[in-house]
Amino acid sequence: MASKAFAIIAGVGPGTGASIARRFAQTYSVVLLSRNPDSFEPLVKDINSSGGHAVGISTDVSDANSVRAAFDQIAKQFPSSVLAATIFNPSGGFVRKPFLELTEDDYSSSLKLQANGGFNIAKHSLPLLLQARGATPHPPTLIFTGATASLKGSANFASLASGKFALRALAQSLAREFGPQGIHVSHAIIDGVIDIPRTKAWTFEHEDAKLNPDAIADSYWHLHTQPRTTFAFEMDLRPYIEKW
Amino acid sequence: MASKAFAIIAGVGPGTGASIARRFAQTYSVVLLSRNPDSFEPLVKDINSSGGHAVGISTDVSDANSVRAAFDQIAKQFPSSVLAATIFNPSGGFVRKPFLELTEDDYSSSLKLQANGGFNIAKHSLPLLLQARGATPHPPTLIFTGATASLKGSANFASLASGKFALRALAQSLAREFGPQGIHVSHAIIDGVIDIPRTKAWTFEHEDAKLNPDAIADSYWHLHTQPRTTFAFEMDLRPYIEKW
Amino acid sequence: MASKAFAIIAGVGPGTGASIARRFAQTYSVVLLSRNPDSFEPLVKDINSSGGHAVGISTDVSDANSVRAAFDQIAKQFPSSVLAATIFNPSGGFVRKPFLELTEDDYSSSLKLQANGGFNIAKHSLPLLLQARGATPHPPTLIFTGATASLKGSANFASLASGKFALRALAQSLAREFGPQGIHVSHAIIDGVIDIPRTKAWTFEHEDAKLNPDAIADSYWHLHTQPRTTFAFEMDLRPYIEKW
Amino acid sequence: MASKAFAIIAGVGPGTGASIARRFAQTYSVVLLSRNPDSFEPLVKDINSSGGHAVGISTDVSDANSVRAAFDQIAKQFPSSVLAATIFNPSGGFVRKPFLELTEDDYSSSLKLQANGGFNIAKHSLPLLLQARGATPHPPTLIFTGATASLKGSANFASLASGKFALRALAQSLAREFGPQGIHVSHAIIDGVIDIPRTKAWTFEHEDAKLNPDAIADSYWHLHTQPRTTFAFEMDLRPYIEKW
Repeated sequence: MASKAFAIIAGVGPGTGASIARRFAQTYSVVLLSRNPDSFEPLVKDINSSGGHAVGISTDVSDANSVRAAFDQIAKQFPSSVLAATIFNPSGGFVRKPFLELTEDDYSSSLKLQANGGFNIAKHSLPLLLQARGATPHPPTLIFTGATASLKGSANFASLASGKFALRALAQSLAREFGPQGIHVSHAIIDGVIDIPRTKAWTFEHEDAKLNPDAIADSYWHLHTQPRTTFAFEMDLRPYIEKW
Repeated sequence: MASKAFAIIAGVGPGTGASIARRFAQTYSVVLLSRNPDSFEPLVKDINSSGGHAVGISTDVSDANSVRAAFDQIAKQFPSSVLAATIFNPSGGFVRKPFLELTEDDYSSSLKLQANGGFNIAKHSLPLLLQARGATPHPPTLIFTGATASLKGSANFASLASGKFALRALAQSLAREFGPQGIHVSHAIIDGVIDIPRTKAWTFEHEDAKLNPDAIADSYWHLHTQPRTTFAFEMDLRPYIEKW
Repeated sequence: MASKAFAIIAGVGPGTGASIARRFAQTYSVVLLSRNPDSFEPLVKDINSSGGHAVGISTDVSDANSVRAAFDQIAKQFPSSVLAATIFNPSGGFVRKPFLELTEDDYSSSLKLQANGGFNIAKHSLPLLLQARGATPHPPTLIFTGATASLKGSANFASLASGKFALRALAQSLAREFGPQGIHVSHAIIDGVIDIPRTKAWTFEHEDAKLNPDAIADSYWHLHTQPRTTFAFEMDLRPYIEKW
Repeated sequence: MASKAFAIIAGVGPGTGASIARRFAQTYSVVLLSRNPDSFEPLVKDINSSGGHAVGISTDVSDANSVRAAFDQIAKQFPSSVLAATIFNPSGGFVRKPFLELTEDDYSSSLKLQANGGFNIAKHSLPLLLQARGATPHPPTLIFTGATASLKGSANFASLASGKFALRALAQSLAREFGPQGIHVSHAIIDGVIDIPRTKAWTFEHEDAKLNPDAIADSYWHLHTQPRTTFAFEMDLRPYIEKW
C-alpha cells in the first residue's frame, strides 16, 4: 500500500538520483522518472523489496508531453496521497567541445534538459506541492541540482553552463514566488566528481576525493526537513580536497 | 565606400541599439540586424546621411538559418573589411507572468532569443573576429547586453532570468576561451529603465532616473578600446537613484 | 565527567548561540564564551542540570589576550578531550548610522568583533581541530555565522557589512587552506530577523516570519555531520516570507 | 595657478597610482597622498614640469589624525576649488603566510590599510564631493581599488582578502547611500599582475601578460566621466591571458 505522501525524483541513474530515492523512500513512496527504464528498474525493485514503495515512469523531462503523461499516471497511482517533495536531478545532456565545434543542437541540449526540463517538472509539481501544504510533516519541497557550472562558465563548457545558469535562474525565481506561499525551493551546487559507477576508474592523489551520493542525499533530506521559518535556498557541496 | 573595418549590432531598435550603432559608426561601418526592417531603416538612413556607413539586414537572431544568411550577405558586402566588434543587444522576447500561468512557449521565448540568439551571433562572429586580430586599432570585441535579471531570478521573471543567466554563462565561457586568443569578450549589466521612446511616459520622483542610451553606448565604446593587457569582462550600469 | 569530545561556542546569548549550545550539548561537552557571564550562566546551569556538560568562560573574542586566557583554561579543564567543533557566533558590535555620523570607533567596532574576533578564535581552535582528526565521529568543524550584510553593503550599514564581509573572507581563506587538511570550515548566512527575546515585540504581517534559532542550530549540526567527501561551505537561511 | 577643480589620489607609488595621477592631472589639479614622500616627489615634479599642477602630502591613510591633517592642508591650498574625484588606491600592507603563522598584527595590517584607510579617506572626501555637485563637469566621484582578493579568500591570503572584502563592503554601502545624492561611488577589481617597476622581472609565457597601469587609469577616467543616469559600480580588469 502506498504511504500517504510521496516524493518525485526526476533524473535517476545509478548515482545521486538513486541515493536520493533511497533516502526519501525511508519516509515516502517515491516516483522515479528517467528516460530509460533501465535506469530505474533495478532501483524500483530494490526499494520495493526492502520495505519501501517505489514506482518508475519512463519520462523525457525535456518533453512537455512526456512530463504531462507522467503526471497523469502519478495522479492515477496516488489518488489520495500528497506530494511532499520533488527533486529535479537529471544529469548528462551536454556536450563539452571548443565553441567553434559546437553545433546548435550541442549547445541547446543542456538548455532543453536543464531549463526546459526544470520548467516542465516545476510546472506540474507546484500545483501538487501547494495542495500538500499542511498535510505533510515538513514544508512541501522542490530541490534543483546544480553544478560547478551553475556559477561559472568555462572554456568548452558553454553548453553545460548555459543550461545550469538558466536552471539556477528558474530556481531563484520560483523560490522568490513560492517561498512566501510556503513551498521550500532550494538549489544545491554539486562541485566535484561524484562517486558513481561511471567515475569508478577515475583516481585521485587523495582518498575520499569524490562526493559521496549518500551524503548528498542526506543533505537534500536535511533541506527538506527545514521548517518554513528557516529555509535554505542554496548549499554548495564538494570534497574536502576540491579546488574552488 | 565602406571603411576598412566594420561592426555588427544585433538587436537595434529606437533605444540602446541605435545609440550603440551611432557611436560605433563614428569609426566603423556598421551592420544593423533586426527582425523588422522598420527597426533599422530610419537609423540606416540617418547614419548614411550624416557621413557614416550603415547597412541593415532583416535577421531573426534566434534562427540559425536567418543568422547564416545575414552573415553570407555581410561577407558579400564587406569582402575586404575586417570585423572590429559585434554587439549582441536584442531586447524583449520574454513574458512576465506568474509561473503557473507561463506556457512552455512563454518560458522558452527568452532562452531562444538570448541564449540561442547569443550562440548564433557568437558562432558566426568569432571566426571573423579571430581573423581581424592585428588588423584593427583595438582588440576585436564581442559585447553581450545583460540586465538586472542576469544576476537575480525574481517572481514573475522566470522567463527573462533564465535567458539572461544563460547568456551570461555563454559570455563567461567565451571570455575564458577566446580572451587568451586576443578577443575581448564582455558582458554589460544594464540595471534600470532605459530612456527610450517606449518608456517616455514612465515618470519617476527624481529627474535623470532613466539610463541614457548614449551613455551606455559610450561605455560600450570604452570597453572596445581597452588594450588586451587590461580587459574588463563585466560592468554594471544603473541610474544614480536605482535601488540595488 | 566531561565527555571525550567538546565543542566551543563563541558568542552565546539568549538566541542562536544558546540553541547551538543545546544542540551540540546533546553529543559533546560544550564551552560557552561570552563577554558577560550573565549571557552564559543560565544556559550553563540549564545544560548541566539536564544531563549535559557545559562550562562558561568570560571572554572578549576581539581581545587576543582574553582569547588566549580562555583557551588556557579550556586546556586545563579538558586535558584528555578533543575539540570536535568551534562555532563563531558573536552578535551585535556594530553601529547603524548615516556614514557622515559614523565615528572611526563606530566603524571599527564590527571589524574588531567579527574580523579580529574570528581571527582570534580560529587561531586557537585550528591547532586543536587538526589534532582531533580521526578521534571524533565527524570531521572537526569550524562554522562562522554570517548575515545579510555578508553579501551586501547597504546605506547605514558600512560598519556591519565591513565586519561581515571580512569574516566571510576569513572563512573562505580558512576553508581553502584547512579543508584539504580534513577540517570542515563553513559559513552560514542568516538572512532575516531571529526569533529571540530581543525581537519578541517585532511583529510581522505573516506568522512564522522570524528565523527559529533551534532550526538554525539543526542546520549547523547537519553541517557538522557531513563527511569530508561532501562538505558544504555555505548555506543561506531565511524565513519563507523574507524578501531577498 | 591651481585649476578650479582638483582630484585626490590616495596611494601613489610608481605604479597604478602614478598613472591615475597623470591621467586626472590632464584635467584637474591633483593631490597625491602617500606615507613616504619618496613615493610622490618625482611624480609631483614630473606633473608640474609638464604643465599640470600637483601637490604631494605625506599621509598615513590608516591613521585618522594623519588624514585629518592632510585634508586641513588641502583646504588651505585649494580654498576656492572643488573636489572632482577621490581615488583610494593604497597597495601593499598585507602579509601572505600560512594561517597558523599569521600574527594578529599581520592579519590586521590589511584591515587597517584598506578598511580603516578607506573609511578615513571617504569620511573626509564625501563632504567635499557633496559640495562639488553642480560645479564640476562630471558627477563628483569616489573610486576604490579592489583586487582578486576582493571576491575570493584563498589559502595564505586571509589578511589581504579580509581587508579587500571589507573595502568592497564599504564601497557598496557608500554607493547605495551617496549614489542617490549624486555622488558616483565605484569599485574596480584589478585581477592580475600590474606592469610596474616592482614586477619588471616577473616573466610570463605570453607577451602583454601584465595589466597596463595607464590603461587602468583610462578606465578610472571613463568611470569618472559617466553621467548620473548611467553609473557603473563595478568593473573587473585583467590581462587577456589571466585565468579567472
